[in-house]
Amino acid sequence: MTHTILTGDRPTGPLHLGHFVGSLQHRVSLQEQHNQTILIADMQGLTDNGHNPKKVADNIFNVMADYLAVGICPTKTTICLQSALPALAELAMYYANLVSVARLERNPTVKAEIASKDFGASIPAGFLNYPISQAADITAFDATIVPVGEDQLPMIELTNEIVRKLNHVAGKQVLIEAKPLLSEVSRLPGVDGKSKMSKSLGNVITFGSTDDEIAKAVRAMYTDPNHIRVDDPGQVEGNVVFTYLDAFHEDKSYVASLKEHYRRGGLGDSKLKGVLADCLVNLITPIRARRAQYIADPAQLRAVLLAGTEQANQKSQQVLGRVKQAFGLNIL
Amino acid sequence: MTHTILTGDRPTGPLHLGHFVGSLQHRVSLQEQHNQTILIADMQGLTDNGHNPKKVADNIFNVMADYLAVGICPTKTTICLQSALPALAELAMYYANLVSVARLERNPTVKAEIASKDFGASIPAGFLNYPISQAADITAFDATIVPVGEDQLPMIELTNEIVRKLNHVAGKQVLIEAKPLLSEVSRLPGVDGKSKMSKSLGNVITFGSTDDEIAKAVRAMYTDPNHIRVDDPGQVEGNVVFTYLDAFHEDKSYVASLKEHYRRGGLGDSKLKGVLADCLVNLITPIRARRAQYIADPAQLRAVLLAGTEQANQKSQQVLGRVKQAFGLNIL
Repeated sequence: MTHTILTGDRPTGPLHLGHFVGSLQHRVSLQEQHNQTILIADMQGLTDNGHNPKKVADNIFNVMADYLAVGICPTKTTICLQSALPALAELAMYYANLVSVARLERNPTVKAEIASKDFGASIPAGFLNYPISQAADITAFDATIVPVGEDQLPMIELTNEIVRKLNHVAGKQVLIEAKPLLSEVSRLPGVDGKSKMSKSLGNVITFGSTDDEIAKAVRAMYTDPNHIRVDDPGQVEGNVVFTYLDAFHEDKSYVASLKEHYRRGGLGDSKLKGVLADCLVNLITPIRARRAQYIADPAQLRAVLLAGTEQANQKSQQVLGRVKQAFGLNIL
Repeated sequence: MTHTILTGDRPTGPLHLGHFVGSLQHRVSLQEQHNQTILIADMQGLTDNGHNPKKVADNIFNVMADYLAVGICPTKTTICLQSALPALAELAMYYANLVSVARLERNPTVKAEIASKDFGASIPAGFLNYPISQAADITAFDATIVPVGEDQLPMIELTNEIVRKLNHVAGKQVLIEAKPLLSEVSRLPGVDGKSKMSKSLGNVITFGSTDDEIAKAVRAMYTDPNHIRVDDPGQVEGNVVFTYLDAFHEDKSYVASLKEHYRRGGLGDSKLKGVLADCLVNLITPIRARRAQYIADPAQLRAVLLAGTEQANQKSQQVLGRVKQAFGLNIL
């Protein structure tokens, strides 16, 4: 069965291996069978960068280049830019009347994000509202499937609440509900083993990282603090190097033999890290090369983004038209 | 000096004599000298009618007909429809990142409105956000002057805060600040003498009211409860009939003589009300006739609104273009 999939990223930095495992690989395979749209969510990127819009603007082409370099194909996937799709802002404005402030403040994802940022007492209105904007993004493409992490499930719930309310007000089905597609792979930890891999934590390997940068990041990886001499038995669980080998090494039986050796003792961290560094260098080298070609040709990136955005504009204007008609506001 | 004026109404019911005194007359005179845009704020009308959009949609042409009937001339004033101007929703989305939730919750006008409505614990997000939407409306036309009642001053303050923040982020002047133009006339009381004339309080005389309805409304007007017999001296202050005569009767010296007679005693309420009813019937009869002609020709109303909205669309897209450029988001 062919689904309509909406996914996307805030362009607030280049993408990295965490995205590769968490979403990009998945998208490359989903595009073969489904009708997939990827939204570069620059407006949403501004919700916590309102005073530093350059951070968002500067990363749009970085993210585009990452997409194309990892194998997202613009003839199979529609890649589009949120700020160039007026229907998304208009839909968000209609939906905001169907959601209470209290409902937004109860959103556990937003609560956790607010706690993790240093907004102080000044939470931007745009940030509190961003789940409404996400509902606009999802519904504007009649998405049936939205790939998400577990922490994003409340967003899909709110979207479907809005869909039901709007259909109720309209007295007919205008919008359709979306289903979450939970990522099978758990989040990749940062190279420091703490929390997730995240641009803001500075513990990432990007698709532009050089061989030296990759080797350096791997050398800095958290292993087993009790594995002091090569002969000591080592722990595999919570050992970031093994987490990465599980995620990226193609030869699973070789990884299994490494684990056995490491547990038994006799496999040094330095040798183990060499295996991972080679693996990541092999993975990233061709992606980095393609990425560099795209980055060197912004006109091509712009053309691809423009074509996708024009297609997305047509679709989202259709949905907006349905909502306006349902509200009787299609008089002009 | 020619100013750029932005004004407008939520289309949630036909306009009435309160609007005539408070804004319409003023607009008819302002259009002679200034560059005036009137926004039919249907999106804003939805912020407290999200579950009843028909109330908004059904009144757009009512309000249009009222404008034209009282003498607002579409060749002098640009009349446009908010929901058909995508730049307004887009600008509001940018501005929402520059305003904190706490700042919105402190807005005294919004606080008072929330208290007067029965939202309960469910204040719609769109309602809390509507001052941001107003800032988008004002700035989208580079308005220098916004005619307001005193209770709307906090809206202009917030708009100018947003203007300053955006210019600061951009590092240059992108938007201009607006000045409030305070209405000289205080609000007209409802025919019951309570509060202001307001559709929701049901104490209004509209431009479609028949002679009988006008006479009936005037008969119901609050006068001086101690003025029981014709010969009793009567009080003019707080006497709704005199408030209306002051507002609408063209012969000010005749009104002065009526006041003197009423104070002295010997002028009955019924005779006094007859004078006011005649005055209002004379005022409304030609407006009502013109209004009926417009209402009978929705194609004409639509054409006028479409032409004004196209003009407004061009202007507001220019301003949006400046904002996007300032944020570096004009890449497509």
